[in-house]
Amino acid sequence: MILTDSLLDFFLETRKHTETLCEPLEIEDYVVQPIIDVSPPKWHLGHSTWFFEQFILEPHATSYRVFDTDFSFVFNSYYETVGKRVVRSDRGNLSRPSVQKVYEYRDYVTKAIKSLFQEKNDPELLNLLEIGIHHEKQHQELLLTDIKYILGNNPLLPIYSDTFKEHPVEKHVQDWVSLEEGVYDIGHNSETFSYDNELGRHKVYLHAYSIANKLVTNKEYIEFITAGGYQKFDLWHAEGWDWVQQNGIESPLYWHRIDGNWQHYTLKGLQPIHPESPVTHISYFEAFAFAQWKGCRLPTEFEWEAAQQYFPWGSRWEWTESAYLPYPNYTKADGALGEYNGKFMVNQKVLRGGSVATPINHTRPTYRNFFQTDLRWQYTGLRLVK
Amino acid sequence: MILTDSLLDFFLETRKHTETLCEPLEIEDYVVQPIIDVSPPKWHLGHSTWFFEQFILEPHATSYRVFDTDFSFVFNSYYETVGKRVVRSDRGNLSRPSVQKVYEYRDYVTKAIKSLFQEKNDPELLNLLEIGIHHEKQHQELLLTDIKYILGNNPLLPIYSDTFKEHPVEKHVQDWVSLEEGVYDIGHNSETFSYDNELGRHKVYLHAYSIANKLVTNKEYIEFITAGGYQKFDLWHAEGWDWVQQNGIESPLYWHRIDGNWQHYTLKGLQPIHPESPVTHISYFEAFAFAQWKGCRLPTEFEWEAAQQYFPWGSRWEWTESAYLPYPNYTKADGALGEYNGKFMVNQKVLRGGSVATPINHTRPTYRNFFQTDLRWQYTGLRLVK
Amino acid sequence: MILTDSLLDFFLETRKHTETLCEPLEIEDYVVQPIIDVSPPKWHLGHSTWFFEQFILEPHATSYRVFDTDFSFVFNSYYETVGKRVVRSDRGNLSRPSVQKVYEYRDYVTKAIKSLFQEKNDPELLNLLEIGIHHEKQHQELLLTDIKYILGNNPLLPIYSDTFKEHPVEKHVQDWVSLEEGVYDIGHNSETFSYDNELGRHKVYLHAYSIANKLVTNKEYIEFITAGGYQKFDLWHAEGWDWVQQNGIESPLYWHRIDGNWQHYTLKGLQPIHPESPVTHISYFEAFAFAQWKGCRLPTEFEWEAAQQYFPWGSRWEWTESAYLPYPNYTKADGALGEYNGKFMVNQKVLRGGSVATPINHTRPTYRNFFQTDLRWQYTGLRLVK
Amino acid sequence: MILTDSLLDFFLETRKHTETLCEPLEIEDYVVQPIIDVSPPKWHLGHSTWFFEQFILEPHATSYRVFDTDFSFVFNSYYETVGKRVVRSDRGNLSRPSVQKVYEYRDYVTKAIKSLFQEKNDPELLNLLEIGIHHEKQHQELLLTDIKYILGNNPLLPIYSDTFKEHPVEKHVQDWVSLEEGVYDIGHNSETFSYDNELGRHKVYLHAYSIANKLVTNKEYIEFITAGGYQKFDLWHAEGWDWVQQNGIESPLYWHRIDGNWQHYTLKGLQPIHPESPVTHISYFEAFAFAQWKGCRLPTEFEWEAAQQYFPWGSRWEWTESAYLPYPNYTKADGALGEYNGKFMVNQKVLRGGSVATPINHTRPTYRNFFQTDLRWQYTGLRLVK
Repeated sequence: MILTDSLLDFFLETRKHTETLCEPLEIEDYVVQPIIDVSPPKWHLGHSTWFFEQFILEPHATSYRVFDTDFSFVFNSYYETVGKRVVRSDRGNLSRPSVQKVYEYRDYVTKAIKSLFQEKNDPELLNLLEIGIHHEKQHQELLLTDIKYILGNNPLLPIYSDTFKEHPVEKHVQDWVSLEEGVYDIGHNSETFSYDNELGRHKVYLHAYSIANKLVTNKEYIEFITAGGYQKFDLWHAEGWDWVQQNGIESPLYWHRIDGNWQHYTLKGLQPIHPESPVTHISYFEAFAFAQWKGCRLPTEFEWEAAQQYFPWGSRWEWTESAYLPYPNYTKADGALGEYNGKFMVNQKVLRGGSVATPINHTRPTYRNFFQTDLRWQYTGLRLVK
Repeated sequence: MILTDSLLDFFLETRKHTETLCEPLEIEDYVVQPIIDVSPPKWHLGHSTWFFEQFILEPHATSYRVFDTDFSFVFNSYYETVGKRVVRSDRGNLSRPSVQKVYEYRDYVTKAIKSLFQEKNDPELLNLLEIGIHHEKQHQELLLTDIKYILGNNPLLPIYSDTFKEHPVEKHVQDWVSLEEGVYDIGHNSETFSYDNELGRHKVYLHAYSIANKLVTNKEYIEFITAGGYQKFDLWHAEGWDWVQQNGIESPLYWHRIDGNWQHYTLKGLQPIHPESPVTHISYFEAFAFAQWKGCRLPTEFEWEAAQQYFPWGSRWEWTESAYLPYPNYTKADGALGEYNGKFMVNQKVLRGGSVATPINHTRPTYRNFFQTDLRWQYTGLRLVK
Repeated sequence: MILTDSLLDFFLETRKHTETLCEPLEIEDYVVQPIIDVSPPKWHLGHSTWFFEQFILEPHATSYRVFDTDFSFVFNSYYETVGKRVVRSDRGNLSRPSVQKVYEYRDYVTKAIKSLFQEKNDPELLNLLEIGIHHEKQHQELLLTDIKYILGNNPLLPIYSDTFKEHPVEKHVQDWVSLEEGVYDIGHNSETFSYDNELGRHKVYLHAYSIANKLVTNKEYIEFITAGGYQKFDLWHAEGWDWVQQNGIESPLYWHRIDGNWQHYTLKGLQPIHPESPVTHISYFEAFAFAQWKGCRLPTEFEWEAAQQYFPWGSRWEWTESAYLPYPNYTKADGALGEYNGKFMVNQKVLRGGSVATPINHTRPTYRNFFQTDLRWQYTGLRLVK
Repeated sequence: MILTDSLLDFFLETRKHTETLCEPLEIEDYVVQPIIDVSPPKWHLGHSTWFFEQFILEPHATSYRVFDTDFSFVFNSYYETVGKRVVRSDRGNLSRPSVQKVYEYRDYVTKAIKSLFQEKNDPELLNLLEIGIHHEKQHQELLLTDIKYILGNNPLLPIYSDTFKEHPVEKHVQDWVSLEEGVYDIGHNSETFSYDNELGRHKVYLHAYSIANKLVTNKEYIEFITAGGYQKFDLWHAEGWDWVQQNGIESPLYWHRIDGNWQHYTLKGLQPIHPESPVTHISYFEAFAFAQWKGCRLPTEFEWEAAQQYFPWGSRWEWTESAYLPYPNYTKADGALGEYNGKFMVNQKVLRGGSVATPINHTRPTYRNFFQTDLRWQYTGLRLVK
C-alpha cells in the first residue's frame, strides 16, 4: 500500500532533482536539439510537468486552472490520444516558452499536486502520481544524456561538471558465471512499482550458458578497433554494415583520435580514455560486432535476468540480443497511458541494467529499457556470453 | 545420405522450373525493377546460376572456364566476401547482359554442373549442390512475387497467366486449437535438408494458448477497413502508424476500390476479391493492427511450430510476433555461405508456413522465413492467437 | 574621400543599431534556427563582428590578440578561403558561445577597431572598414527577418514590438509609367559606396514598356487566391508548380485563414491583413504566377532601374524577371572578399528596391539583392510591367 | 508557305530516322531509365507518336480511333493540360506496352497522319504537323544521348555503333574574333520554322568583346584537371562547388582514368581521349570554372548569336552565361502547346549551337536550347570570351 506522505516526499524530491541536474546549464543550453533523438532540456522540464497536469490535475483537481493552454501543444510527446503536438523534429526550433516561464510552470504544477494530495488519498490517484514520478525519473536520465550530447557536439566542448563520475572502474577479475539448463521465472512479481512491460511473471526455458561477471572494457574495445573490427564486414549484420559505411563510424560516440591517442568527451570535458572503464556510447550493431569478434555473443534479456544476481551491474545499460516484445499475457492499458510502452514493441532491442545516468532506485532486475539498434547517446555497454 | 542421381534430377527439374515460371513473360518484363525490394526476373535467372558457378564450378571443377568474368559483378547479390557487385538499387538499370545471353549462361552452367556430378560424388560437393538447389527454389518464390509486382504496378495491369491459382479458400469452420503450458521442442532435427537458421533442436517454454485453425479471410479484413482500422492510431505500433500516414495506406497491396467495390490485381489481371479467401499482401504492421482490433494477437514462431500439426497451412506466409533471432547454439558458417542467414538477424520478423508461390516440398514445419515489418509484396497473411 | 571621423561614427552607430534590434529578444530567441535559410540572432551578432576581426584586426592591428580562436570556426559563414567552419545547417545546434560571451566579443572588437582607426587612416583600411559596416547593415536586415521567422513559426506567436511599422500603405492611385525604346545607362557610377556586383556603368537596350507606379496590394493578391491562382498550373513555371504541390502552398508566408478571414503574423503578433498594404512574403514563383494571371509580367532589373525615379520604392524588395548575373567587365576581387558576391551568380533572381527591414541609407537605385526563387522570409513584393 | 507534299516527305523521313537510331538496340535497351533525366528509348518512340495522335489526329481526324486509350497515360510527358500521366521517375518501371506494341503504334499513327494530310491542307494543321516533326527531331537528339547514357553506365560498356562519329576535330588554329560595341539584332525573323522562344526579333546592346573561333579541347581541359581545377573552390560558384563535393566529380561524364591514362566511353565503346577534340559532357558549373581558370568567361547568348557567323559550330551544344528567360514581347501560346517552352524559363542556362546528336537542319543561329546547370549527358562544350 502506498502511503501519501512518503509518496509526496518522493514527488518533491524528484521534482527538485530534475532541476538540480540543470543547474550547470546556461539558458542557451536549454533550447537546442542537435539531433532528433535528443530533446532540449527545456522540453524535458516542461513535458514531465505537463504529464502531471494532463493526467492528474486536469481530470481530478476540480478547481485547477491550466497554466497555459498552449503548453499542451508544446509539451505533449507522443500521446496521440490527447491531441495535437509539435512534431519531435521541431522541438529545437522553439525559443518560447522561455526557460523562466517553464520553471514557473513547474512551480505552479508542483504546488497544485501538493495541494491535491494533501486533501485526497484515493489509491487510483496515488497510482497515477507514482507513474508520474517514475516518468519524470526516466526523463532525468534522458535529460543528462541529452545535455551530454548538446555539449559534446558543440565545437567548444564545454564542461558540464567537474565532479560527475561517469566512468567507474570494475575492479574485480573477469570471470564466467555458468548457469544450468532449465525453466526460469522471468518478469516482475512484487508489490513495488514496475512498468507494464515487465509485468506478468512467466516461465522461460534457458539452455546452459556462461555469462561474464564484468562489462567489456575500453581496453578490450580498443583492441577490436586496432584489429580492424570496423573494416571487417563479416562481423556485422548487413544493416549494421550499411550503418558503419554510411556514417563513417570508426569508434564509439564522443571518441576523438588526437595525436595518435584516444580521448573522449565527458561531462568534465575532453579526457583521456581510461582503459579499465567499461566501454560506453556504442550501438547495438557495435556490441554485436565486438561479440562476434570475440567468438562470443550477447545475452538474451532472460539470460541476463536469470544471472544478474551473480554480478554487479548498474553503470551501463547493457545491450541484449532480445528484441523488445510483449511478455505473455501483456495487455496494453486503456487510453493515453496505454501508449506508454506497447506501441514501441517493434524493431528495438532490450537493454538491461541501468547506467550512471539512472536515478537511484529507478532501475531493478526486471526493468526493460529499449532503443533502436543504431542509437549511441545513452550510456550503453555490453557483457559477453559464451 | 544424398544420392547423386536423384539430386541431379532434382537439380535439373529445379533449373527447368525457374524457366517455366518465366514463360509468360515478354522480354521487357525481365528487365525492370520498380522498387528496391523487387529484382528483375533476368537477375534472378542470372544470380541463381552464378551461385552454382561461384561456389561449385570455380573452386571444384578443374577445367571449368568462367562464362563471362563480368557476370560475377552483375549477379552477385550481397556476398561481400566474393568481391564487388552492382548495388541492389541499380539492378533495374542494366539492359545488358541480354535475356538471351542470360539463358545461354544458364545452359552453360547447368551442363557444367551435370558433367561435374557425373564424375564426382564427394559428399561435401553434394551438400553444396543441395544448398544451390534450395537457393534457386527460394528465388523461384521471389521470382513469382517480383513478376506480380512488376505487372501489378504497370498501369496496363497485364495478365500473367489464366490458370495460376493464387487465392484458394479454406473450407473448414473457424475454430480454436488450445495447447497446454509446458516445454516444447523447437527447431529442425531430421536428416533432411534445412537451412542453418532452423538448426539446433532446443527447448522452449510455452504458456497455454489457443490458436486459430484458419487464416484470417478477406471478409474479416474488409470489416477491419470498414470499421476504420486504418484511421485508429491506438491499434498500431508508433512506427506502423508513421508508415500508414507517410504512405497513405488504406488497404492491402494490389487492392483497388472501383465504383465502391474492392478488386485486386492478381496474376489473372484485375479480379473481384473473394470474401472467403485468406487476406494477403499485408505488412506485419497491418497484421498486428488487425489482431489488436480483434482483441487477439499474433502467435510467436514457437507457438506456431508447436501447433502447426493441428491446422492446414501453406497458402500464405504467416506473420508471427517473433523477431528473427538466432536459435541457441547457432553459429554462422565460415566464408561466403555464412552470409546466407546470420547477417539478416536484426529488425526483421519471422514468417512461418509457406505460400502459393512456394515451390512444392520447399517449406517444412521448421522453416523460418523473414522480412522487414513494412513489406507486402509476398503472399503474406495472418492467423490469430488468443 | 572617406573621412576617418565620420566613418568611425558610422561604424559605432551601426554596431549599436544591431544591438538595438535585439533588445526585445529573450536569450532563448538568440539561439534557434528553424530553417536553414534563417540564422540564429546570436550568429549574426558574432559573424558581423568576426568579419572586422578577420579582415581588419588580424592582418592590420599589430598588437591585436584574437578574442577566442574557436570563434573563427563558429562565426565564419561561407569564406572557404579562411578555413574550416560550422556548416550552415548546424548553426542552431550551438548553445555556446553564450549570448553574453558574444556581446563581450562585440565590445572587444568594437573597441579594438576604434583604437586602430584613431591611429591609422590608411585609405585601404578605411575601405575595408566601410565594407565591414555595410556588411553589418546587410546582416541587420537579415537579423530582423530571421527574428520574424523564429517568432512567427513559434506556435505561441510572440510579439516582437508594438511599434515597428511593417505594412505601410501607398496612398497614390495606381497608374502606368511608360518609357521609350532606346539605350539606357545601368550600374553604379558615383564616388559613394557600392558593392562590386553593381559596378561597371554600362549600356542596355530597352524596348518600350509601361511599369506600375505602385506595388501590388494584399487586396489584389487575395483576388488571385480567390480566383484559384494556386490551383491553375498554367500560371506557373513547371518548377514553381512542383514547389506549390510539394509544400502545399496556398497563400503568402505568415498568412493564416482564421474563421474565414485572412490574418497574418506580424512583428506586433497576429493581425488582420490590411487590403491596401503591398503584399509581401511571396516567392518569385508566386510573383510570376500573379503577373501571368494579370496578363502582365515582372520588370527586368534594367527596366526597374531605368524607371525607378518615377515611383516611390523602398518598402518591399521587388522581384524582377532578371537572373542574377555579372555585369559586363565584372571581375571578382582577389581573396576572401572576392567570395562576397560572385560565387552566388547562378540560379538566383535579382530583387530591386529595399524593404521596411533595410537600414536607412543602405539601399540605392543600383543596389542588387538576390535570392533563390522559392524563398519568402524577406519582405518581398512585386510591381507589374505591361 | 508550307507545301503539303514536301512536309509529308519530311514527316515520313523523320519518323523513319527515329527508328533507324534504334536499330542497334537490343529489346532490353529500350526499357531502362538509369537516372531521372534519361528516358527509356521505348518512351521516346511512344511519346513522339502520341504527340501526333493527341494534337492532330484526335481533334482533327474525324474517323480516327485512338490506338490504345491507356497510352495517353503512359506517353504524356509534362502536358498537365491533357490529363494524368505516369510520373517521370517511373518511366523505367514500365515493361509494357512492349517494344513491338510501340512500333505497331508508330505505324498506326504514321499511316493515319499520311491519310489525313493526303486529304487536307489546312494551314493550321500543317503548322501543327511541322511542330510535331520538330518535336520528334528534338527527341531524336535526346534518344541518342539517352542511349549513350544507358549503355555507358552499364558495367559491360556495350558498343552502340562502330561508325558514329562523335568526336570530330576542329583543324583551324585557335584565334579571337573581336566585335565592336553597339546595338545588335537578336532573335528569329525569317519565314522558316522556329520555336516560340526564339521569336521576337529585338535589339540588344553589346559592349566590345572577343570570342574564340574554336571550342575548348580535351587537351586544354586535361590541363585544367592536372592543375587541380576540381580542387580549387575559388574557381567555382558556391552551388557548383557543393555539386562537385557531393558527387565526387573529378572529370567530365564518361571519363575513366585507367592505368594513368584518360579514356572515355563513346558509342564505339571505351576509347582513348583525343586531345584535339572539343571537350564534351561537362556541366555549366564545369564550363564556368574552366573559363575562370583561364581568366576568361563564357559568352552571353547574345554575344554568341552576334558572332556565330565568324566561326564553325554545330558539334557541341555550347554553354552560355545567359539564363533562359523570355525575349521581350514573348507570349505563351494558349493550351497545351503553350507548355512547350515558357514553363521552363527559370533556373536553367541557355545553350547555343547544336551537337553531333542534333538532326541535320534541326538547329539554326537563333535556336535556344536550355538545361539545368548540373546536367552533363548532352554533348555539351564551351567557347571562351575575353
